[in-house]
Amino acid sequence: MASGRLLVEILSIGDELLIGQTVNTNAAWMGHLLEKEGWRVNRCVVVSDEEAAIVDALKDAESRAELVLITGGLGPTRDDITKHVLCRHFDTELVRYPEIEDRIVSWFERRGRTVLQVNRDQALLPAACRPLENPLGTASGMWFERSNGVTVSMPGVPYEMEYIMEHGVLPAMRDRMQQEGRLPKRAHLSLLTMGTGESQLAATLGDMEEALERSGVKLAYLPSPGSVRIRLTAEGEAVDQLDRSHAAVLERLGEWVVSDEGLPVEEALGQFLVRHGLTLAVAESCTGGALGAALVARPGASAFFLGGVQSYSNAAKEQLLDVPGPLIAEFGAVSEDVARAMAKGARKKFGADFGVSITGIAGPDGGSEDKPVGTVYMACEGPSGAMCVRHQFGRDRTRNLAMSVRSAAQLALKLAIEWDVKSKPASRVADSL
Amino acid sequence: MASGRLLVEILSIGDELLIGQTVNTNAAWMGHLLEKEGWRVNRCVVVSDEEAAIVDALKDAESRAELVLITGGLGPTRDDITKHVLCRHFDTELVRYPEIEDRIVSWFERRGRTVLQVNRDQALLPAACRPLENPLGTASGMWFERSNGVTVSMPGVPYEMEYIMEHGVLPAMRDRMQQEGRLPKRAHLSLLTMGTGESQLAATLGDMEEALERSGVKLAYLPSPGSVRIRLTAEGEAVDQLDRSHAAVLERLGEWVVSDEGLPVEEALGQFLVRHGLTLAVAESCTGGALGAALVARPGASAFFLGGVQSYSNAAKEQLLDVPGPLIAEFGAVSEDVARAMAKGARKKFGADFGVSITGIAGPDGGSEDKPVGTVYMACEGPSGAMCVRHQFGRDRTRNLAMSVRSAAQLALKLAIEWDVKSKPASRVADSL
Repeated sequence: MASGRLLVEILSIGDELLIGQTVNTNAAWMGHLLEKEGWRVNRCVVVSDEEAAIVDALKDAESRAELVLITGGLGPTRDDITKHVLCRHFDTELVRYPEIEDRIVSWFERRGRTVLQVNRDQALLPAACRPLENPLGTASGMWFERSNGVTVSMPGVPYEMEYIMEHGVLPAMRDRMQQEGRLPKRAHLSLLTMGTGESQLAATLGDMEEALERSGVKLAYLPSPGSVRIRLTAEGEAVDQLDRSHAAVLERLGEWVVSDEGLPVEEALGQFLVRHGLTLAVAESCTGGALGAALVARPGASAFFLGGVQSYSNAAKEQLLDVPGPLIAEFGAVSEDVARAMAKGARKKFGADFGVSITGIAGPDGGSEDKPVGTVYMACEGPSGAMCVRHQFGRDRTRNLAMSVRSAAQLALKLAIEWDVKSKPASRVADSL
Repeated sequence: MASGRLLVEILSIGDELLIGQTVNTNAAWMGHLLEKEGWRVNRCVVVSDEEAAIVDALKDAESRAELVLITGGLGPTRDDITKHVLCRHFDTELVRYPEIEDRIVSWFERRGRTVLQVNRDQALLPAACRPLENPLGTASGMWFERSNGVTVSMPGVPYEMEYIMEHGVLPAMRDRMQQEGRLPKRAHLSLLTMGTGESQLAATLGDMEEALERSGVKLAYLPSPGSVRIRLTAEGEAVDQLDRSHAAVLERLGEWVVSDEGLPVEEALGQFLVRHGLTLAVAESCTGGALGAALVARPGASAFFLGGVQSYSNAAKEQLLDVPGPLIAEFGAVSEDVARAMAKGARKKFGADFGVSITGIAGPDGGSEDKPVGTVYMACEGPSGAMCVRHQFGRDRTRNLAMSVRSAAQLALKLAIEWDVKSKPASRVADSL
């Protein structure tokens, strides 16, 4: 194999990916893992379940990459052709592995299901490959040595692929790299900003950016609605000064920075609350629990998240959050008054420092002239006061729900940061309460 | 251009996609849209922000596809190189479009932000392209005619890309196809099964599958943990008999079918409840609201979803769901008894037909010998009784949370179907209550 960083390409097989029935989270998961390992993901290709397309893309990837990772098309049914295609590609034939067949049979027996011949035939694997164990399913991984590298085929079921990557592919590839004395060196650091756009950030960094680039540190701006993540990447010797560069960028951007780790806003909110010993509760109407779900996505959420109420119906708003019925009758469930009352109710019911609420019209139906589809109110109540914002998103339900979660987290983070700034001189806390 | 179905390839540009910092939802969104249009997505490639990689992949895609869709790398910062690469690729140069510059300036003014030169320079576009309007941002789409087709470049921000696709690319491409008299014909129908594996399903369809294939209908099995989606695809003349084939498969698979539209389990649950006029409430501990969020992801959720409690803390379980404190003290918050009490509490508090609960140890910490990380209890209480299951998932928090949501929806769907079957003879409902 070549020297330097390991070059990897990913080949995902499946019509369901091409037609958008499934999102290719496998590629993102692998990319994240490989990047952490210091290996370079050069390209990622999705092709259909057709022999010509698979072979064409595979040859192409193998011509460039030392490690080619294939996922998908290993099921027992007729539409799964990867194994047969690989046999022809590597000029080998299927042989039966009795110990794998035993494992498959016991896999079915443990689940009280009948083993069919097609299940047993999952133990038929190319003679030229080294099987990689998959205790979570019936399709083994396959490791093929080739003159200029390695090609691995894995099932497309995420947790099966992940197991084979972590227990089969990574350890074997690490050994190989070590034997060749190849130690990769590449590192990233990120930060998250709110309150301005990427062009203003780039202008502020100005001269610095060129100096960083000359010293081998690359800057990337990754904008999301309402926030911009900045990523610093260093390779080789520049890695040693990455911390210093990161600190310099943090200092230059000052109060725009809301997370020095470049976390998504929801995670930055959790991090901030934990650091300051604060707690939060939610009241979610149109999002149905998505804000809470985003907050608990990272470990350690119990240190700040007390819970919430998914008050999808008006009755739930009244009974579980003490939103006054007349308020809903007068202003409607989607209104500033109800949003504020929901935030107050969540804060009180859970005894939290901050209560955050979301109520809106996610669409595609239910809008009016005053409050068209995409109208969402978010409110946050904290120890030093409350805030409410009205957003007018678009007509797409999925996007409206995602934007609502992000905006509500931003609002809570803003209020928490302001409260922290205000509360620092102890005398002023008393004043503001 | 060629006759027949339009062949499309997608080229996504961005290191953040390769290293898994961002999941390529753009490709899935485009794939779904193009598929609905009847066009064929042949390949989807992700490359890094490097000129050589972009040009290489672009040439490759253009050699095969009539329509090449590029996303990403159009921001105003130095790391965004797509526009310059396209100028060299199409042998053209940047020219300033005054009307686009005016739009950019007013875009910033409306938001009360300063317009920088780099923002104005977003109005510099290749002379050889036709700009595609993007009212949601500052980067225009670009439409390039080439001898054997069209190449379009769009920003990577999802809603900007979506706007340009819907308002710029689709209408123009449809016109073109119509002028050429090309009417694509391709259709899909799906169904969702639970309770058996893909091999058993394939065995059950057996003879049928070959007959379908001969008549031009292709079957695909898409397994997820606990369920298998089956997709039927027909092209050309076979489209006319797709409905009949679908009905035949539905009949053959009988009670394994839980959704005749192939919806995910959470959506199948919602569909079932709406059809039978039933309601549901949730009580979520470790998932923090993810089940509720999944249930409201589709429009019309208010017809069956009343709400829920995100009882992340024990106090919330007691106070908002009436879970007896001694029960938590004796068995722990993660236990069958507490899961059942949570489901009962949700059902009662919201006055719902079904109450569903989730309580577990999502990890990576917090496990014990008895209840290791990945232990999750789900319970469901309905009009004719309650059920509780214990799952032992793995160590990955994200997967544990996703599997918990899916399994809880499965449990509720199972109970709802059983209740429906039981309740059909009216006399037996009374017996069972």
